[in-house]
Amino acid sequence: MTLENALHTHKAMLLVALEQDPKELTRLLEELRAADIAELLEDLVDQQDEMPSVLSLLEHLPLTRRAHVYGFLPGWLQARLVDQLSDEALLAILEEMSSDDRADLYNLLGEDRREALLRRMAHREREELKRLASYEEGTAGAVMTSNYVAIPSGLTASQALLRVRQTAPDAETVYQIYIVDEQGHLAGTLSLRQLLIARPSAYLDELMIKDVIHTQVETLQEEVARLVARYDLLAVPVVDENELLVGIVTHDDVIDVIQAEATEDIHKGASVGNLEDGVSRSPLWNLYRKRVAWLVLLVFGNLFSGAGIAYFEDIIAAQVALVFFLPLLIDSGGNAGAQASTLTVRGLATGDIAFKDWGKLLGRELLIAAALGMTMALAVSPIGFMRGGEMLMIVVAMSMTIIVLTGSLVGLCLPFVLDRLGWDPATASGPLVTTLIDSFGVIIYFGIATILLTNI
Amino acid sequence: MTLENALHTHKAMLLVALEQDPKELTRLLEELRAADIAELLEDLVDQQDEMPSVLSLLEHLPLTRRAHVYGFLPGWLQARLVDQLSDEALLAILEEMSSDDRADLYNLLGEDRREALLRRMAHREREELKRLASYEEGTAGAVMTSNYVAIPSGLTASQALLRVRQTAPDAETVYQIYIVDEQGHLAGTLSLRQLLIARPSAYLDELMIKDVIHTQVETLQEEVARLVARYDLLAVPVVDENELLVGIVTHDDVIDVIQAEATEDIHKGASVGNLEDGVSRSPLWNLYRKRVAWLVLLVFGNLFSGAGIAYFEDIIAAQVALVFFLPLLIDSGGNAGAQASTLTVRGLATGDIAFKDWGKLLGRELLIAAALGMTMALAVSPIGFMRGGEMLMIVVAMSMTIIVLTGSLVGLCLPFVLDRLGWDPATASGPLVTTLIDSFGVIIYFGIATILLTNI
Repeated sequence: MTLENALHTHKAMLLVALEQDPKELTRLLEELRAADIAELLEDLVDQQDEMPSVLSLLEHLPLTRRAHVYGFLPGWLQARLVDQLSDEALLAILEEMSSDDRADLYNLLGEDRREALLRRMAHREREELKRLASYEEGTAGAVMTSNYVAIPSGLTASQALLRVRQTAPDAETVYQIYIVDEQGHLAGTLSLRQLLIARPSAYLDELMIKDVIHTQVETLQEEVARLVARYDLLAVPVVDENELLVGIVTHDDVIDVIQAEATEDIHKGASVGNLEDGVSRSPLWNLYRKRVAWLVLLVFGNLFSGAGIAYFEDIIAAQVALVFFLPLLIDSGGNAGAQASTLTVRGLATGDIAFKDWGKLLGRELLIAAALGMTMALAVSPIGFMRGGEMLMIVVAMSMTIIVLTGSLVGLCLPFVLDRLGWDPATASGPLVTTLIDSFGVIIYFGIATILLTNI
Repeated sequence: MTLENALHTHKAMLLVALEQDPKELTRLLEELRAADIAELLEDLVDQQDEMPSVLSLLEHLPLTRRAHVYGFLPGWLQARLVDQLSDEALLAILEEMSSDDRADLYNLLGEDRREALLRRMAHREREELKRLASYEEGTAGAVMTSNYVAIPSGLTASQALLRVRQTAPDAETVYQIYIVDEQGHLAGTLSLRQLLIARPSAYLDELMIKDVIHTQVETLQEEVARLVARYDLLAVPVVDENELLVGIVTHDDVIDVIQAEATEDIHKGASVGNLEDGVSRSPLWNLYRKRVAWLVLLVFGNLFSGAGIAYFEDIIAAQVALVFFLPLLIDSGGNAGAQASTLTVRGLATGDIAFKDWGKLLGRELLIAAALGMTMALAVSPIGFMRGGEMLMIVVAMSMTIIVLTGSLVGLCLPFVLDRLGWDPATASGPLVTTLIDSFGVIIYFGIATILLTNI
């Protein structure tokens, strides 16, 4: 809250200074961090659509700072801003950006603009940019940076330290150093800490760790994040298909990946498709599209419940009191099932459980679900008795137990089944589980009612 | 998968070596990383309950390594292992652990054991441990480490670098240096990178950044994580109520916090209480407890739907065909509502949307939900027509539109309402939204049916 308020005050002051006092503006901008400036600019466009002010504020920043701020802006705003820039101005910014941000921005441009920019670049820069921009989104290649410290093996610790000092201003991180052989293969790694406390005349070959945790360019970003989280790494090196070192993924990018993957899983858990821009920024049409597909699909899934009800229409007509408990029973099954599927999906995503644990989990779930079902049957029994006497109470209690048990088991198994079919287990969302279990619930409830109530 | 297989092979080899070949065992253990050894040990206990093997494997590790492995073990296993250790052996491990891991392990011990250990410690160590262990779980104080590099202001860059070299072996990170005044107040910060490229004779006071991003001991860990993520920090310093520097929270702990918070939110989203040990490890009783409370509560919530149905019993008895569409309609409302609440809750958690955006979001949701409702009405209309002719089609289509609209708006508003009541917005879970919307759905559907069908 204090942060938000501080930013709000700053925004007002910046806008006044922009019109009246360039010196004050420079001072204000110096006080702010790049991430905060980026948020202010986003707010300006978002709430007042102040593109001209945003552009002049950006022009007021020194070039390096401006490039840094660009890196913090969301893609949609970067795309709108660079539309207003000349090729020279854009190129100047691109050259100051870190290599991963540069590739991301490049990928936002149209074909013509890309060509125009590439033509103005030196050969090496051009090839580098094209290569980084070519990796598929969501892979290590797409999140890695090529601004790392690579040092040839054969140097001593003191020579290496000198190299680190020289490359420090440009590297994304200097705290983990990568040692490469003559061809550029990853040969070892050393932390700057180890380098600092090493004997200055010691050779890197003796000091370095040779068994380096590394990843491939095409590895999925969530796998990369898992490596970094598991081994508490500062960065993980990325090699290409020839085992040549081509980049590193740093801890701050890993945090972004973990956040984004959790958001994606949470959205999937509610049957919402993957949103690229976050809910506040997504165009309405996009939000509609990402929600409607599953909703309509589930409508048709729900027809099974309808069919079940049509089949049991006679008993319903004879005992309308049964309908009273219908939402309660099918919802309870759905809720218990959603719990089971959510626990399973998240357990699989964090690596807490593995696919091979299937059998063990099923046994545990059977016990828990039976206990849950009986507790809930107990809770609902008095109401059953009040609404329709002893027999209805028995029908409702039995149905509750069996529906909760079935629901939980379906919820537990669905992620494993989906995985077998080659789908993302996270698709086993609450709504899907609920819809599936509804049809089971209808059949179980009215089936039991038919058996017990029509024999009276 | 390759990682899993490699670990599996290693486990078998370790067990053989443990029995027959101590030298081979030492070699194998040296090859493994601490995180992997910890996982192997966990597996051993988990699948074969091999506590004696686990203890002898641990004893085979050099003390520093053993302490490091302990830090990677889950709490429940640490607690079981230290039960088997003498006070001396436990103390030796504690002294080698990083200060945050040490405090966590200490908090797992019983009162008597704690007293026995504290008595054997030096005064300063004892006070330090008691202080770190006293911070409330889930706050900056509880995740921070006191192994940081603090350097008095007034030194030069080269003097500071010498200090860094001396403290390097013990510090959790040496890459961000904190400058303190004589009383120990946080005065500034400097990255090791800046220190390395600074003029050796420059004073820290001139080099350091004075406006340090920092946090308080009692700040919630998710707030700390948000700071680190927002500003791409390596670590964030923590000060106490007197603004004295007392610790730092490092990037690797932040990753753990982000994972744990996402898991907690995902579980809450399915109405599951907070599990401390993960689903695979939680005792059955615990899992039951964390699930049953909400389920039973929702049973009573569902009674409102039942009451609605009881109220409309006449129209249901007269037109049993209506029941066919009941699960379909109330589920659709629940699904759309779950989507809206999930998008809102996650947006609030990631900071993508703020509480003040309430009005704007409502406007957007109104448009999207109307479009969704009409699409779904269109999808369900033919079925309505087939089951009961034109009038039923109109009833079902109208109900669908209004229920989806209502459901979406309830889903959107609920997190804000809960927040106003001082509850966690994440409590606005799918099951809660579904249950709420069910009662609305029942009233809307049978209300429309009564008006349109009884007038014929």
